[in-house]
Amino acid sequence: MSRESDSDFMTQAVRLATKGIYTAHPNPIVGCVIVRNGEVVGEGWHAAAGEAHAEIHALEAAGDRARGATAFVTLEPCSHHGKTPPCADALIDAGVAEVVIGLEDPNPDVDGKGAKRLEEAGVKIRTGLLADQVERQLSGFLSRVTRGRPFVRLKMASSIDGCIAMASGESQWITGPEARSDVQRLRARSGAVLSGIGTVLADDPSFTVRDPNIDTRGRQPLRVVLDRKLRMPLSAEMLALPGQTLVYCCDDSKETPLRDAGAEVVAVDEVNGFVNAQTVLDDLGRREINDVLVEAGPVLAGHLLENDLIDELVIYQAPHIMGSETIGMFRTPSWTALADRRLLDIIDTRQVGPDTRITARFKG
Amino acid sequence: MSRESDSDFMTQAVRLATKGIYTAHPNPIVGCVIVRNGEVVGEGWHAAAGEAHAEIHALEAAGDRARGATAFVTLEPCSHHGKTPPCADALIDAGVAEVVIGLEDPNPDVDGKGAKRLEEAGVKIRTGLLADQVERQLSGFLSRVTRGRPFVRLKMASSIDGCIAMASGESQWITGPEARSDVQRLRARSGAVLSGIGTVLADDPSFTVRDPNIDTRGRQPLRVVLDRKLRMPLSAEMLALPGQTLVYCCDDSKETPLRDAGAEVVAVDEVNGFVNAQTVLDDLGRREINDVLVEAGPVLAGHLLENDLIDELVIYQAPHIMGSETIGMFRTPSWTALADRRLLDIIDTRQVGPDTRITARFKG
Repeated sequence: MSRESDSDFMTQAVRLATKGIYTAHPNPIVGCVIVRNGEVVGEGWHAAAGEAHAEIHALEAAGDRARGATAFVTLEPCSHHGKTPPCADALIDAGVAEVVIGLEDPNPDVDGKGAKRLEEAGVKIRTGLLADQVERQLSGFLSRVTRGRPFVRLKMASSIDGCIAMASGESQWITGPEARSDVQRLRARSGAVLSGIGTVLADDPSFTVRDPNIDTRGRQPLRVVLDRKLRMPLSAEMLALPGQTLVYCCDDSKETPLRDAGAEVVAVDEVNGFVNAQTVLDDLGRREINDVLVEAGPVLAGHLLENDLIDELVIYQAPHIMGSETIGMFRTPSWTALADRRLLDIIDTRQVGPDTRITARFKG
Repeated sequence: MSRESDSDFMTQAVRLATKGIYTAHPNPIVGCVIVRNGEVVGEGWHAAAGEAHAEIHALEAAGDRARGATAFVTLEPCSHHGKTPPCADALIDAGVAEVVIGLEDPNPDVDGKGAKRLEEAGVKIRTGLLADQVERQLSGFLSRVTRGRPFVRLKMASSIDGCIAMASGESQWITGPEARSDVQRLRARSGAVLSGIGTVLADDPSFTVRDPNIDTRGRQPLRVVLDRKLRMPLSAEMLALPGQTLVYCCDDSKETPLRDAGAEVVAVDEVNGFVNAQTVLDDLGRREINDVLVEAGPVLAGHLLENDLIDELVIYQAPHIMGSETIGMFRTPSWTALADRRLLDIIDTRQVGPDTRITARFKG
């Protein structure tokens, strides 16, 4: 088997993993391909917490043909009894001869122990094939496990000249229906959607996944609102919708009817007139949220940028020029010199209907 | 010969035409390929006014093999004695059997007469092959001939959030060296570079083509400055550089030392506190300028946009976020509703070093 086809098999495993993207939370998405004599004899991916891991599905599909075969798995097989028995044992029991691993699992429950267990049982191990791709695919899970907080993705829709609305606030339909439908997919892959009370008061958003083509098994992302002074109205649309709403404020001394309306209300500290977003993200990490999608206005978006709390930007750029009597994308009062600007690595640019979607991560 | 290879030959002619892009002014760039039995026997392009046209070069290369051959020429061959004898006659004399024309020449001196002359001599004519490509390639020439004014291309460098400078004016090096070198090519293909007195006072630009890899045969684009009150200092860099400087003002009652410094100074009418740009463009058309590159700040750029005087935008977008304490791309005080925004057709997007170059034309 050439190194080239190894890459192909791991690419296939990476692609399989994405099938769990809307349902595997809070678990990582994982794909597995079992190959015998250059032929794929089993495929698997992890669909949901409590269900079988990718390796188990692939082994079941392979049956006896797993004996002496090579397993390509995007993330290091587990060695501990969680909700399901350890995959390392299953691979050993099935007689797999070699396991090619995309990325070592930094989760302290695994962290090399899975690979070690396989090696001790005489299974040949190779680690790091397409690790970059797997790392990108697992940004959220890796962020939570290594930094204790979710991966934060900020979505914005703007014109080519960086405007999100007219100064009057008029802003409907800047981007096309394809971009809005793409946002549904961003939501569906996120454990939580985060916004500010300003956006809630202005737009009364639902933040739900409504596209019938996206199967989240009924799960809706947690709706998180930063609402320092608890101004959220009981009539807010999101309180009546399926899924949970979590409101972070800076004063819970007063009883709030929001709790009776079904919202969870948590008080955290305040910083410069904002709910402390770092505290919020740490709390969301403890709640096993891997990915947060921020859908906010320029004030909160700018505040998060100023504090380097955004990991990835997804910008839908409409082919329009809106001019100067407008509102810009980010309110960043502390950036006064050119040296304050943030540099990006563009990781993907593509057309989404008439709009251009730019995905970028911050340098350094 | 299949239709498919006809397209290939015309594509080759279009590509040949671009070889004259820096030198053919004010003539249109034209390419010609002569094909006999499916084989290219002659190529030509128009290099400079007063020199042979594309067809003549191609016929010379083909020699006797032109007899019975097909000529693919991007623009209708001329039928009039200009600085050189008519190409239609040369094609007839050489015994060419068929002429495939990309675009009819709307120039009143030609305007179907070239094709007619060929037809009357028994040459088979086909018109309109890849006409869109030729039309785009000849935007400047066609604009001047049909609208009496040049094609206006506005170049801007901005961050992804649409900023061109900090509010303090700090703006150096937003885009990379590759983008700056690309701007040299935009300048070199333009008959004139147009700016406002604000940019001249702030940046003292040269607007010259300095890249030794670009051969303009020594020609520099005409430098055009809109300077309503004749504030241009005699120390302005551009006055000392090779090439001509043309200053449009709204009051030439006073003698100006700018004329002694070598600038041409022309008074035109004023509109809303600006030099009337429409008058300026009409005058540049009379001066046989096909393409104008606008390199201006947000005030003049916005004013031209508000008056729908820009035909094409070329935006170099740096992968930076600059935030709110900044200056936007276009100052457009008259656009107050979302309906005022301008819609674009993106015609090209590509990486230029670390930056993204977006080329767009206005819809409608």
